Amino acid sequence: MSRAHDDKPTALPKSRPPRRRFLAASAGVGVSAMAGPALADSLADVPPREVGASLGARSERSQFVQLGRITESAPGHLNADPSVAINSKTPLDKLVGIITPSDLHYERSHAGVPNLDPAKHRLLIHGLVKKPLVLTVADLEAMPSISRIHFIECTGNGWENWKKADPNLTVQETHGLVSTSEWTGVPLKFLVDLVGVDRASLWMLAEGGDAAGVDRSIPLTDEILDEAFVAYGQNGEAIRPSHGFPIRLIMPGFEGNLNIKWLRRLKFGDQPWMTRWETDRYTQLLADGKARQFQLRMDTNSVITFPSGMMQIQPGYHRMSGLAWSGRGTIKRVEVSTDGARTWKDAELNLPVLRKAQARFQMDWVWDGKPTKIVSRSTDEQGNIQPDREAFVAQMGTNALFHYNAQQTWSIDASGRVRNVLA
Amino acid sequence: MSRAHDDKPTALPKSRPPRRRFLAASAGVGVSAMAGPALADSLADVPPREVGASLGARSERSQFVQLGRITESAPGHLNADPSVAINSKTPLDKLVGIITPSDLHYERSHAGVPNLDPAKHRLLIHGLVKKPLVLTVADLEAMPSISRIHFIECTGNGWENWKKADPNLTVQETHGLVSTSEWTGVPLKFLVDLVGVDRASLWMLAEGGDAAGVDRSIPLTDEILDEAFVAYGQNGEAIRPSHGFPIRLIMPGFEGNLNIKWLRRLKFGDQPWMTRWETDRYTQLLADGKARQFQLRMDTNSVITFPSGMMQIQPGYHRMSGLAWSGRGTIKRVEVSTDGARTWKDAELNLPVLRKAQARFQMDWVWDGKPTKIVSRSTDEQGNIQPDREAFVAQMGTNALFHYNAQQTWSIDASGRVRNVLA
Repeated sequence: MSRAHDDKPTALPKSRPPRRRFLAASAGVGVSAMAGPALADSLADVPPREVGASLGARSERSQFVQLGRITESAPGHLNADPSVAINSKTPLDKLVGIITPSDLHYERSHAGVPNLDPAKHRLLIHGLVKKPLVLTVADLEAMPSISRIHFIECTGNGWENWKKADPNLTVQETHGLVSTSEWTGVPLKFLVDLVGVDRASLWMLAEGGDAAGVDRSIPLTDEILDEAFVAYGQNGEAIRPSHGFPIRLIMPGFEGNLNIKWLRRLKFGDQPWMTRWETDRYTQLLADGKARQFQLRMDTNSVITFPSGMMQIQPGYHRMSGLAWSGRGTIKRVEVSTDGARTWKDAELNLPVLRKAQARFQMDWVWDGKPTKIVSRSTDEQGNIQPDREAFVAQMGTNALFHYNAQQTWSIDASGRVRNVLA
Repeated sequence: MSRAHDDKPTALPKSRPPRRRFLAASAGVGVSAMAGPALADSLADVPPREVGASLGARSERSQFVQLGRITESAPGHLNADPSVAINSKTPLDKLVGIITPSDLHYERSHAGVPNLDPAKHRLLIHGLVKKPLVLTVADLEAMPSISRIHFIECTGNGWENWKKADPNLTVQETHGLVSTSEWTGVPLKFLVDLVGVDRASLWMLAEGGDAAGVDRSIPLTDEILDEAFVAYGQNGEAIRPSHGFPIRLIMPGFEGNLNIKWLRRLKFGDQPWMTRWETDRYTQLLADGKARQFQLRMDTNSVITFPSGMMQIQPGYHRMSGLAWSGRGTIKRVEVSTDGARTWKDAELNLPVLRKAQARFQMDWVWDGKPTKIVSRSTDEQGNIQPDREAFVAQMGTNALFHYNAQQTWSIDASGRVRNVLA
């Protein structure tokens, strides 16, 4: 039962030499070997210890940490109220690991954030089913549940760079419409069994409870039946109103707007409903002038978050870091170029790499102080390689707005300033 | 590159019969099959859609969700200031999944929460090393990092039930000193290599920067050298002041007080320092009157969170849920008894089950309305089985305060009231 004394120290393993590159380069960026009086001097300005604040019901952020999303408004947009911001972007440049704090998860809404009372909210499940049901939130919470760490990405993420590159954008602005959370809820399959969905059903309509009433037709593929779920939890707690409280459809790997927030209806049928959200909105105008519908999957993507847009770096050692993700499965490889996509090196992937979640990658780099460009490209388990911008535009043209997943290039000038460029 | 049309719907697989137990029992707890006018009636009280609030820099919680920790003060305790609460407990009964929101992660502090300026904070690494170093937080952030999802547990978690059981405690009160986060930071091994730790070093002293100056001697086992790290990130963002901002030692699987918060010093040596935190505090008074030192590992544990203390349930179907964890590795099995530990059934483990993280378990249960007791027991990958209280007390006696990991029993009376009992 209790084995108190099995944690005896053993002799230290023969010490590996410290990473030479890090040590050699780091003297210039603050790490310095000190001994004796020098050590004491370097600690002299450490503030004295004082009794701190009392513990409370919630742990707030440090006053020294400033974290917030950038919101965007679009007067004249489809929004019911033009004063309501249409999206907010996650500060990818200031986050670490893969989990996005719930209050910093990106938002995209078409009629603001409704303030729904969970006691009054209902989920209607009907259409080609044996037994239509109306479920309360409490009903859902009482059912078998799963928890999965997945990214959600707005289908418009990255469109800023499709046609031109504003050099003054940060990575929060170019790629901030993607975030990762642990979501908890009821498998779609359980609900399908519960209402007895007719085998003739090939599609499911999911409708949100906000004033915009976003509704999308979702094909009932095996993958979606296996992986989709109706969530009520995000990062351990109830989903926040911005992200769909009290319930949200989670569609791992598919565009954000299919992850219907404030979910109030699932309808089953034998064909898509062709709602305005899949005819007027969220279709792709191709190079030949035709519109592509139901391009639902989010493609293989990545971005370097350090260093990234508008940062200022010094010559010497840097630990590059970034995020990679794919709606087609698990990230298998991320390559980084520090010479403008001429040569590539494998980055290290932080473990564990989770399916349809963001993966963190890192690479050692010593910048020689000369102007250059840095860029990443990811590969997923199906072998999909993130395209460069030229190849992406050659295939997709420049009329469309969605599913931009071309490689992101940051240029670094002689002064160390990092800028957003096309390639 | 872009494969837009591979997500065609396929015929629905032959529908499995819905879980009979759930369907049969659930009629009594709210889920009801409805059709036609009945459906419309049941939706009649759903509030109308209204344009919602604008999107903002941060997503707040719903006004309908009340989440907070319970704080405890202890006048006359070791604390420097008796008005400062000594701990706060995570509301395990209200959370889902495995991630604990950062602002709800439990706290245990001996001198309140210091408000440290990361620009002035320093980490001194010295002792039996070739090259002592003073590192800034920026130095650490520039180093190679890892991210790991791990639980941290106060060594005093659960002590309330060691000698007697207050029937009015919730699971937040009995087990709320354990939480799980994604932590990000620099591997201890990297720092060991950086300063050139002498092979004669068998121990490391880690000291915190709060007024209490908590410092602990840590044995340099292979496991600790492989797994410990100096973290600056928690759930994607900077660690919050309550949890060690700007840096904290993470010791996966070991008692919470070894995960030194506000870390300011690592010293290497050939023997433990015998600080007051490992002589006066955090030693175990055994049944024979001797004190056990350096019992550092957190043992195999579990608790049912639904239903749990002070809840009120109805006869019929319930989806039981709970958490299991072990400082010795991965949870392999959780068994649940609904007849007071006479018979046991395997619960389902939510996937993925992560090493030294909390694991969520669930089990279907139809309560017949008769008084009974429910209890869980976990088994980890090393085969350690969580003991019942009798076996635990037989080995550890009742003088000690720490490392209580006996099975938790909840009694349910004929009215459906759930109470904390010894067994």
